[in-house]
Amino acid sequence: MNHLFRNSWTRFVCSFNRFHFSITQNSSKFSHFSGRFEPESWRSMEGMVHCSANHVPLSPISFLDRAAKAFRDRTSVVYGSVKYTWGETHERCLRLASALTQLGISTGDVVATLAPNVPAMHELHFAVPMAGAVLCTLNTRYDSAMLSSLLTHSEAKIIFVDYQLLEIARGAFQVHEKTGAEPPLLVLISESDGPCPVDITSNTYEYESLLANGQNGFQVRRPNCEWDPISLNYTSGTTSRPKGVVYSHRGAYLNSLATVLLHGIGSMPVYLWTVPMFHCNGWCLIWGLAAQGGTNICLRKVTPKGIFDSIAKHSVTHMGGAPTVLNMIVNSPVSDQSPLPHKVEVMTGGAPPPPQIISKMEELGFGVSHLYGLTETYGPGTSCIWKPEWDSLPLDERSKLKARQGVHHLGLEEVDIRDPVTLARVPADGKTMGEIMFRGNTVMSGYLKDLKATEEAFSGGWFRSGDLAVKHPDNYIEVKDRLKDIVISGGENISTVEVETVLFGHPAVLEAAVVARPDDHWGQTPCAFVKLKEGYDHVSAQEIIKFCRDHLPHYMAPRTVIFEDLPKTSTGKTQKFILREKAKTMGSLS
Amino acid sequence: MNHLFRNSWTRFVCSFNRFHFSITQNSSKFSHFSGRFEPESWRSMEGMVHCSANHVPLSPISFLDRAAKAFRDRTSVVYGSVKYTWGETHERCLRLASALTQLGISTGDVVATLAPNVPAMHELHFAVPMAGAVLCTLNTRYDSAMLSSLLTHSEAKIIFVDYQLLEIARGAFQVHEKTGAEPPLLVLISESDGPCPVDITSNTYEYESLLANGQNGFQVRRPNCEWDPISLNYTSGTTSRPKGVVYSHRGAYLNSLATVLLHGIGSMPVYLWTVPMFHCNGWCLIWGLAAQGGTNICLRKVTPKGIFDSIAKHSVTHMGGAPTVLNMIVNSPVSDQSPLPHKVEVMTGGAPPPPQIISKMEELGFGVSHLYGLTETYGPGTSCIWKPEWDSLPLDERSKLKARQGVHHLGLEEVDIRDPVTLARVPADGKTMGEIMFRGNTVMSGYLKDLKATEEAFSGGWFRSGDLAVKHPDNYIEVKDRLKDIVISGGENISTVEVETVLFGHPAVLEAAVVARPDDHWGQTPCAFVKLKEGYDHVSAQEIIKFCRDHLPHYMAPRTVIFEDLPKTSTGKTQKFILREKAKTMGSLS
Repeated sequence: MNHLFRNSWTRFVCSFNRFHFSITQNSSKFSHFSGRFEPESWRSMEGMVHCSANHVPLSPISFLDRAAKAFRDRTSVVYGSVKYTWGETHERCLRLASALTQLGISTGDVVATLAPNVPAMHELHFAVPMAGAVLCTLNTRYDSAMLSSLLTHSEAKIIFVDYQLLEIARGAFQVHEKTGAEPPLLVLISESDGPCPVDITSNTYEYESLLANGQNGFQVRRPNCEWDPISLNYTSGTTSRPKGVVYSHRGAYLNSLATVLLHGIGSMPVYLWTVPMFHCNGWCLIWGLAAQGGTNICLRKVTPKGIFDSIAKHSVTHMGGAPTVLNMIVNSPVSDQSPLPHKVEVMTGGAPPPPQIISKMEELGFGVSHLYGLTETYGPGTSCIWKPEWDSLPLDERSKLKARQGVHHLGLEEVDIRDPVTLARVPADGKTMGEIMFRGNTVMSGYLKDLKATEEAFSGGWFRSGDLAVKHPDNYIEVKDRLKDIVISGGENISTVEVETVLFGHPAVLEAAVVARPDDHWGQTPCAFVKLKEGYDHVSAQEIIKFCRDHLPHYMAPRTVIFEDLPKTSTGKTQKFILREKAKTMGSLS
Repeated sequence: MNHLFRNSWTRFVCSFNRFHFSITQNSSKFSHFSGRFEPESWRSMEGMVHCSANHVPLSPISFLDRAAKAFRDRTSVVYGSVKYTWGETHERCLRLASALTQLGISTGDVVATLAPNVPAMHELHFAVPMAGAVLCTLNTRYDSAMLSSLLTHSEAKIIFVDYQLLEIARGAFQVHEKTGAEPPLLVLISESDGPCPVDITSNTYEYESLLANGQNGFQVRRPNCEWDPISLNYTSGTTSRPKGVVYSHRGAYLNSLATVLLHGIGSMPVYLWTVPMFHCNGWCLIWGLAAQGGTNICLRKVTPKGIFDSIAKHSVTHMGGAPTVLNMIVNSPVSDQSPLPHKVEVMTGGAPPPPQIISKMEELGFGVSHLYGLTETYGPGTSCIWKPEWDSLPLDERSKLKARQGVHHLGLEEVDIRDPVTLARVPADGKTMGEIMFRGNTVMSGYLKDLKATEEAFSGGWFRSGDLAVKHPDNYIEVKDRLKDIVISGGENISTVEVETVLFGHPAVLEAAVVARPDDHWGQTPCAFVKLKEGYDHVSAQEIIKFCRDHLPHYMAPRTVIFEDLPKTSTGKTQKFILREKAKTMGSLS
């Protein structure tokens, strides 16, 4: 048999040259025709060409260009009295990108931010890549030392700083100066509708003035290749020094659409920003909302009252939040709550949500969808797709089903649970634990300047999440623990997530975290750190332990309970490594 | 300034080699790690790698693999008493792909079909590319001569033929034999739940028996490169000999998701197949529904009664259809209609839908969304995104707004209206006509074996649609005519679409098409071909002309009206070239 479609790189180059030739022959007006070809194994054939008419590198900056046409007069951003349309946002981003190039930013340079969810953060997600640069959104809870260290590591040329965080940035610059390093340029983000609250020195720019100097007709520097970097996200550092995760234009485009689809975000949604924009680029939804022509409701500070008020005022349709945000909502005083105008869809993730919290959110009228992912997977990677046949189950069963992490989204190729050493697939029995592994286009390009860590994370051709999970018979996965968090007691694996779920079932428990405590006899035993709800100070450790023993196999119940506030990362994750250190210093129990 | 992210192809190759090395060093178990790199202008940097963990060529066959996990026990296909789950469909497609390779199909071979919307057509959309081959779905209305010609042109190795179309195929084989060419292998699709209606000769295979011989554990032949061809779609041939439009795996993946988003197809929809699956691969929705875990309701024959019955029986949520299908629904006898159980979303396109038909569909309880595209754009390319602020307008104004073709979808980069000669952008004034031009990843790879036609279609770096349109001040485009259909009378352009819209407003008109008639004085004048509704035989040409003069500038009203049935393509498009010939033979009017 002859193969009609065969590898014909040579033939393609030929036909491509002929194409150019014939264009030039026909009319000089068409001289701006531009094309490229792929010298890899493209299976071309006679008549096929690869040119600017049928190929554009995938990038989420295309979403803004489209939104400016399709949704021009609709509201893009609301922040207090500040309000923009998509047409205005587009123009502002063009000006800002132009201003960045005027400051000397070249293709591939890093531009950093230190800011909460204000409009400038929204705009920088488009303007920085439109200037050909890479956006690095730093965690607003870093101290000056950490900030200085990450500015050095990322080689950021400019940092945009919110006025309330200026002292942290100045502190970081002082650390820089001690080492003789040149600090980045600083652009101050002041409140647009108020006076600038600080003096602008000669080495500092102001956001609105800078933007006003940019050109509206700026020619966007699109990526030459869709695998070019678009952003740099440092991990939250629950277990180690933050690592710089590099996202590509291609991955960001694909994860934006996959997240829009997994959250059921239709055309023209109203999205409330309770997830930090600096965290995985807001789970890629800053870009995803431009794709759907949505309205971004920005909040400087996330409080239950602020959430309920915004929902009522702006008819919010969708929002997101780590389980800690959901916990804050369900435990807020009734005086802070107001009835929802309609069902508000909440996407939760970042840590396994206790079923009790999901139940309570749904009682309040929220629809909770549960996703799972890591910074290395652009945020969301799996979701617990809800089957209509589960609707008729009792609330607690529904919540247990929904607390599972589910199946991979459309941007990924595969998520599997495998033995971390042999790579053997675990049986779908809901019992056998293995490591969650990812494979697909929405996995990071690597850790910046840390090839060793990249190699380790990708060893075996899969991204190793470091999370332990089981696979249920219906193929849904359920996280049982971080590989580093699991408690091994008398040879038995104890999922700290399972113990925490029982603890959350106790009426007095507001927050709970379980870690391993060294034990001479058992090796390790579970140790619970618990924050009680107000008015429950009388509850004793013994009562908590008894409650756990009533609801769990004996060996899984905590042997120690300590009442205190839990240390958290800025994204609401409990810093178990701190608690583990604390449990160690208590010595062996036996 | 140093550029942190710079072109570093050499550096990447180095780090890539180091990666392999370190994997091999660490553990021989990880030897199946596989990777590739892009020797084009990827802007890599230290720590970034490009390997099987973070790159998979985009292909819609991934959707089936995911559906088999995420939606395993949910219904994939219903056809009469035949019913499959996604788990079963996945297994059947693996077996079918395996069987194709057993028949000698190699990567890049073409596999053709000649069949209506039956389950085999659904399965072949996955199984053929899973065998590494290219799917060519032929129009079921072709005669034997055309079929023979396209089988020769496509070099199809196998053709799958529905039992009701067997004689057409045999006729084509006889034409083949006369020319001495070897015909393709024939696989007969019989009705699965009945006896095989024809004798199977030794040169012919039967679908179910073939599939049963395939292996479930077949190793899918994924594309090496996402620009590899996945399907070959011949244009409907309204104006010329059908051209073979080549789709890529990448384009098919992106258009599937873009179409799902533009039609608002949520998770687990129920889709009624009234659009032919052979037409643009069912507007890419065969793949799109696998992405969303939908149920495909297959119909051999599309009738109003069949549509209403299927909606009621299967709780259909979405369907599609050319304006002719909508026309058939709104003009069906009341006895064939039944009340809708809920709003059914209908996506219409393929020709400009008359506003009156949209209004009547909405009165019946359908929600109509309007899209526009061509075979060359994988089907849908733009959609008339509906703005909530239009809800309060009167029905006829709403229908006029909705009859516009709208804005480009998320898979494309840009759709613009430009002067076909100078490529200058027309003003967004709703009046100035220009040619609709497309640019982006969901534009075809080219016309098979017709580089000249590909070059013409892509001249200037845009895909030239051959359609004339205006751009409204809100950036929505509106098709006015085919470039070849427009009537030029006394130097004035007359949009035949506008005249047809007025004709549809006359209560007696069922179908209408306007073409140019040569005229010694005016050059051309509009000539209307009209099919009247039953019971309206008394209506005269003069009455129709007067009606048009009352609703249009005088020069735009037809000067001739001819009552007759309109010639159509199988996708419901009127074959205006036939009418134009007819109008020519009538000679000049003056």
